[in-house]
This record gives sequence, C-alpha cells and structure tokens, in this order.
Amino acid sequence: MTASLPVFADVVAAAARIGPHVVRTPVMRSAAFDARVGREVVFKCENIQTGGAFKYRGAMNTVLQLDPARTPTVITHSSGNHGNALALAARARGMRAIVIIPRDSSRPKIAAIERAGARIEFCDPGLPAREKRLAEVLAHEPAELVHPFDDARIIAGQGTAMLELLTEVPALDVVSTPIGGGGLIAGCALAAKGLVPGIRFVGAEPAMADDACQSFRAGERRQLRTPDTIADGLRGFIGVRNFALLRSHVDDVVTVGESEIVAAMRIVLEDLKLLVEPSSAVAVAAALAGKLGAPGERVGIVLSGGNVDLDACPFLRGERTS
Amino acid sequence: MTASLPVFADVVAAAARIGPHVVRTPVMRSAAFDARVGREVVFKCENIQTGGAFKYRGAMNTVLQLDPARTPTVITHSSGNHGNALALAARARGMRAIVIIPRDSSRPKIAAIERAGARIEFCDPGLPAREKRLAEVLAHEPAELVHPFDDARIIAGQGTAMLELLTEVPALDVVSTPIGGGGLIAGCALAAKGLVPGIRFVGAEPAMADDACQSFRAGERRQLRTPDTIADGLRGFIGVRNFALLRSHVDDVVTVGESEIVAAMRIVLEDLKLLVEPSSAVAVAAALAGKLGAPGERVGIVLSGGNVDLDACPFLRGERTS
Repeated sequence: MTASLPVFADVVAAAARIGPHVVRTPVMRSAAFDARVGREVVFKCENIQTGGAFKYRGAMNTVLQLDPARTPTVITHSSGNHGNALALAARARGMRAIVIIPRDSSRPKIAAIERAGARIEFCDPGLPAREKRLAEVLAHEPAELVHPFDDARIIAGQGTAMLELLTEVPALDVVSTPIGGGGLIAGCALAAKGLVPGIRFVGAEPAMADDACQSFRAGERRQLRTPDTIADGLRGFIGVRNFALLRSHVDDVVTVGESEIVAAMRIVLEDLKLLVEPSSAVAVAAALAGKLGAPGERVGIVLSGGNVDLDACPFLRGERTS
Repeated sequence: MTASLPVFADVVAAAARIGPHVVRTPVMRSAAFDARVGREVVFKCENIQTGGAFKYRGAMNTVLQLDPARTPTVITHSSGNHGNALALAARARGMRAIVIIPRDSSRPKIAAIERAGARIEFCDPGLPAREKRLAEVLAHEPAELVHPFDDARIIAGQGTAMLELLTEVPALDVVSTPIGGGGLIAGCALAAKGLVPGIRFVGAEPAMADDACQSFRAGERRQLRTPDTIADGLRGFIGVRNFALLRSHVDDVVTVGESEIVAAMRIVLEDLKLLVEPSSAVAVAAALAGKLGAPGERVGIVLSGGNVDLDACPFLRGERTS
C-alpha cells in the first residue's frame, strides 16, 4: 500500500489555507447536557459550516491547491454532503464541478447540489455503476477527481475542525467524531494527537454500519454486506488512508444503536437548540451512553453536519422515540 | 409618569458589568435564508444564551447591582424565561430567588425553574392573583422585586444583545426584535440608536397579540382583552417604561399571523440549523413577509430564545404547516 498519508503539518497548512474561506464555527456547551452525562462536553458546530457540514473544509483545501487555469473542472461521485461541498468550493474558486449521483437519490439532495452550481450526471445505484459513469465522463473531458474521503487533501482539510476546537478548548481528556468513510476522523485524529499528544480519541459508529469498528478490532479493513442505518452519511466503508490513520491515531471505536441515534438528535435540539443530522448524533449518542470518557472528564465532540430532511426525521414528523 | 428611563450609557455600562457572566452569543447567517428574502440577514443567537433566552442578560445586570449581604433574596412572578433567568442569575451571585408561578403553568417550565434553584410559590392564574401572592410573600420576608420587563436595569441588560450585534456587524440598515412586555425592544432600541443613529428599528408582534402595535399607532398604551398566540413569550402587555422607549426609539411595528410564525420556526431550523421558540420566530416571519427593510438592504434580527416544548410544536409533532 503506497497511498500517501497526510501528517499533522498538513492539517496546520490546511488551516492557514482555508481559514479565510470557511466558517470558524462556534464551540458550544450546555449545562443541561453536562448534567445528563456527568461530565463537561463541548461541541464543535460544523452543522453550521458552509453547506451545512464539515465537508466544505476538505473540499476547499483541495480546490485551493488546484490552479483553475490548468484544472478548470473537479469531479466526484457523492449524493450527500461531499458533492454539495465540492460544488460550493469549486464555485467559490471559479471552477466547474461535476457530481455523479445515483438516480435514486432524494430530490432535496439533488436540488441542493444543483443550486450549488454543479453539473449533475446521473448513474445507476451502487459503487460499480458510479465508477463506470465516472470513467465515461472522464473519457470525454479532463477533470480532477476529488474522492469524498480517501484523499490526503480531504483528510487534512477535515482535520482543521479539530485543530480549531483544541485551539479554543485545549484541556480536553477525550475527543470524538463519527466514522463514515473516515475523512473526518482521520484528519481530526491527526490534529488531536499532534496538538495534545496525551488526548484520547474515540470514534463512534452506528452498530448497524460498524465496518470501521470491526476493521479496527481485526487490524484489517473489513466491509459489511449491507450497512444500514438512519445515519445516511455513515453507510460507506472506511477508506485505505483513513483506516491506516484510524489504526495509528485512534484509541478506540464504540458503537450505538439506531434508537440511541434518534434520541441523541432530539436531545441536541432540546439542550443545545441545534439541528444535527443523524450521522452527527452518533458521537453524541456515545456520550449519552457513557462511552466517551469517565465522569468528571472533559469531552469534545465534532457535530459533523445539520442537513436533515425534516419530513423524514422520526421525531420531527411526530413519532415518539422513547 | 415619573418612572426612570434608562439611557444608552446604561446599556454600555450593563455590557461591561455582565460581559464576564453571559455568553457572547454568535451572529449567524445563512445563504439559503438570504436567497429567500432577497436581502442579507444576520441573526444574533440569544436562543443559546444561558437559560436559553436573552432574559439572562437583564437578570444578571440586575443582580450584579445588588449586594447579596444586604439583599440576599430576589423575587418575581414569571412562569417563563424571566423566572428561569432570574433564578440562574441569583444562584450565580450566591443569592436566593423566589418565583411566583400560576398553578396552571406547564410542568417542564416549573421543573426548569426548580432546577435553576429557585423557590417556587404557586398562585392562581391571572395578574391580580400573581400580585396578591407577591404581596403576601413580601409581607413575610424582604426581597428585591425584579420585574420581568418594566425595570430600567432589565431594559439596559437586554439591550446588550443589540450592542454586541452592532459591534460585530455595524453596517445594518434595519434591525428587529419581537415585542412582548418590551424589555428586549426597549433596550435594543436604545443600543441601536445610540450606536448607529441612522439605523431603522422595526418591532415585530403577533397579530393575535398586537397591543404594542395598537399602542404605537394610537400614541398611548392599550391593552387587549384576550391576547392569544402560539408565541407564549409575547402574550403580556407592553410596560410603561417600555412603551415610552418604543415611542421615542422605534420607527415602526409590524405584525404577522400564527401560521407565518410556525413556518418561520421551521425555516430557521432548516436554514440556520437552530431551534427558536415561537416568540423569536415572529421577527423572522416579518422578514420572510418582506416587512423588514427593502431588497438589497442588510437586516439584523435578535433570535430571542430557544425554549420550545418539542411535544407542543405543530411541525415538530408532525402536523404539516404549509
């Protein structure tokens, strides 16, 4: 495996590069939440980042390293926050973006990526169909592929969220992010261990999509047959670079159940007045289950995004969750 | 009428006094919201203030001017955010708080005030019963009465929210707050006209509880028979000092309907990822209706609070609102 891995200095360089272009999101606390878990918890609010998710950091870090004159077009396949973030970042940089999206993606997601100015190319569902369509498009027009997570520039960019959190609140015992493809956790773990070597880093994953947890325990990447979870951002498998950094920089991976994720979303709304998407609620659910740190310790959580289809959220559409 | 009116300097003094004790809440923007209204709107997020509302500013400004050795106890009658804020501020200052609450108040509100450390004295519903119970309690024990809004210290404290907003974003054309008893609008109007003399200040009120609007137009305080609105924080009547400052410092008062208020709550959740209470959504609804400023102008809104009973919110419990 020769994939180049980013290092702590890449995260620091990314922070300097993207600083003027991203929202320095606030760090929030809630006395009510602290009382629930018997420890002090701070939340880095990437749900209010441009595009509604941390993904804008990595996308911006990537496009800012491209010369629009030589590389006028970027391309990716993502129906979620990365597609939207790359479209917004490309537009801000005066570049074109092409986003390959499965035909069965939700209308609001497609509409958001269109509004962000990207050209959309539809494909059949499933990773092989996505990659086939990608090759077809690239055969006709040159474009820089920007992978959603298995890319050193993306990882370094995502890590700037943790760099900002720990610069503002350095005295944390444990920090946590959710794990999907692993762009966020890989970058944030680099940042955390680089800034505060003694800090503990605990990843959080849905039990219904625990490929990273299984891979972490096994010491090798494992893919599940059918990951399924309400946390739609975490259904993918952890990438090669991401897994390497998970093994070297993360201390533990914990899992939570689906009803815990929904309950955590509601508690964040109630205690912090913040809307977070199910993927973000996964690390919060781990905290509520007592799986992050010990009583009296200080915990930091990255709230990764806030893009929720209000009509599809169980408690927002009125089902009772507990 | 000899009630002492606060002046701009009182707001500045309040900011210095309470600065170390309150949350300097973030100012947020949303490109999606701007696109809806064709103008740039910034939001001062008092929904994440301590206690979940701007009320903590006025309460803290008041208790910090009392000597706990001479005045160990404060008292008020409020089942809402002011009662909670005064309880929290008194506790932070090492003082006792007594809060008189109508028996029919909601359980969550009573529980919150109890958690904040106040002693609760129940009374029958209605202002006369509240004032009777207040007199009874005061006959037995001395305490400093802290009115929810018709008090110069409270007004000056609430104004610090606008002082912070305009210090951070001075180039606004129009600013707005909701109007209940008028503590927020009176203090914020003092702050706005003191800092940026040419700025326009537009108050926002539910059409179902438009006593301030009617009073503003008539030039004298008018009380409605039965104010009724989902914006529970705005059902009271504007106070004496508050009306005097409304007349002298506010340029216009606009009203919005109940369904507009609920729709605005949902839009704030969607665009800003923030939970605001119906009272806060009133000024947002005015913006959405094109009643704040003109296209291309820059608008500032104070999101006054985020204390929502999730089970009682129409769209949160699943009813469709539009």
